Amino acid sequence: MLVLITYDVQTTSPDGAKRLRSISKICQNYGQRVQNSVFECLVDPLQFKQMKTQLEAVMNPQTDSLRYYMLGANWKRKVEHVGAKQSYDPEGLLLL
Amino acid sequence: MLVLITYDVQTTSPDGAKRLRSISKICQNYGQRVQNSVFECLVDPLQFKQMKTQLEAVMNPQTDSLRYYMLGANWKRKVEHVGAKQSYDPEGLLLL
Repeated sequence: MLVLITYDVQTTSPDGAKRLRSISKICQNYGQRVQNSVFECLVDPLQFKQMKTQLEAVMNPQTDSLRYYMLGANWKRKVEHVGAKQSYDPEGLLLL
Repeated sequence: MLVLITYDVQTTSPDGAKRLRSISKICQNYGQRVQNSVFECLVDPLQFKQMKTQLEAVMNPQTDSLRYYMLGANWKRKVEHVGAKQSYDPEGLLLL
């Protein structure tokens, strides 16, 4: 299933900048960056659970937020991209 | 239907900062901000078309990107929020 992850991290402190890097790194382990704070991850339920556990251990729930959107298996029909950075296929191939 | 909009706007120039404000303003006319560059919009197909036309007239396709995710009518089961800024209901009521 495709899970879309969007995040806001408060980066006004050095700690925040560190959290931002960590969150971005965890997301990169599970999916591909499609915008600055937006990742698309093709994961199974177990991977999703692991990823959530890791992300939520790093974030500061007082200042940061994470949103997960379950796009299911038929995600290809549900996503539209316009503008810079061409669309890619989360199943593997970059479409350039 | 719920449409999720995420955007990246290059703000290294004054023009970019202006585009960012315009894009955010258009999105606000159609939905609610859930993160810095993430909006959820409850729109019908005509409103979606109008919103897209407005957004794509403002953006610079060389440097900015817009992504639309169609979450359909059963979006409530598909969205999960963790952390700061409590979840809200795009149908109107803020859930505090």
